[in-house]
Amino acid sequence: MKKWKLSNKKEVLKAKIFKYFTVDVESEVTHKKGTFDIIASFDWVNILALNKAGQFILVKQYRAGTDSITYEFAAGGMEIGEEPLVSAKRELLEETGHTSSNWSHMLSVDVNPAFMVNKCHFFLAQDATKTTDQSLDHLEEIEIIYKSKDEVLNMLDSGEISHSLVALGLNHYFRHN
Amino acid sequence: MKKWKLSNKKEVLKAKIFKYFTVDVESEVTHKKGTFDIIASFDWVNILALNKAGQFILVKQYRAGTDSITYEFAAGGMEIGEEPLVSAKRELLEETGHTSSNWSHMLSVDVNPAFMVNKCHFFLAQDATKTTDQSLDHLEEIEIIYKSKDEVLNMLDSGEISHSLVALGLNHYFRHN
Repeated sequence: MKKWKLSNKKEVLKAKIFKYFTVDVESEVTHKKGTFDIIASFDWVNILALNKAGQFILVKQYRAGTDSITYEFAAGGMEIGEEPLVSAKRELLEETGHTSSNWSHMLSVDVNPAFMVNKCHFFLAQDATKTTDQSLDHLEEIEIIYKSKDEVLNMLDSGEISHSLVALGLNHYFRHN
Repeated sequence: MKKWKLSNKKEVLKAKIFKYFTVDVESEVTHKKGTFDIIASFDWVNILALNKAGQFILVKQYRAGTDSITYEFAAGGMEIGEEPLVSAKRELLEETGHTSSNWSHMLSVDVNPAFMVNKCHFFLAQDATKTTDQSLDHLEEIEIIYKSKDEVLNMLDSGEISHSLVALGLNHYFRHN
């Protein structure tokens, strides 16, 4: 098996949070050929934060994709030139006003290799404390929610926590802890 | 916290595997307002299949999003009017030629509530056997790979398995098994 040959990559559209490209592809093995969709975004970070009481710090917010109110972790897109850990610290601070001096990298994944370019980097922030107010973007409205590990596990298994990336972070965490 | 008010939903573009919409949003609490991106696809299915020897049945293929060759599970988009289990049986058969009489639903998640409409449904197919040849789409070139549970766990923890949804399915599986 070999990587396919790409050619004629075209930026079709620049949306608010991604660019959409098409690219012509051809297998050098079977000579199948066609055109694929590509969505390019900056990498994302997702922060599993625990306070000193061992509670997870969740963010509750309205999400337009599913037209629903979700429970997630502080998360967001990296900015140009940022290292993932810097982005993670910034997003946790902006969305929850919490800081931590106990950070560790959990895992990084490709969001969807079939048609998405970007990665998601997961960090664990332990012993987090609220040191300031939220500093929200003009389209963010976020409630901070504290839940015990048992409560979060129940929310995961009941489907109340439904975001695939949050579910990945939690399943990874609970597999190891 | 309340759901935001949506208006003026517009289909901007129909790509090969998704439609892209914009929608105007307004919070009825803080009266923040703006426009969000929405990507709509059919729901996806992802099949963790094990053969009678207890090996996972992986698919190895080129993926244009990351321009790389990946290890994943048989997976794909649901067709109109299909139930998720029907889609899962169809995708496992088409991509690997395997069937199973021992299916169970593992979990369903929202792929990305922030801007994606669709869900991903995970199924476990045990005691799968190869009953026919692959039946691949005109843009699929897929190698079938058998790996023991220990090998797959190593591939997950080393990052060789990097697709976020495959990693979610596996972390969920290994948390419970």
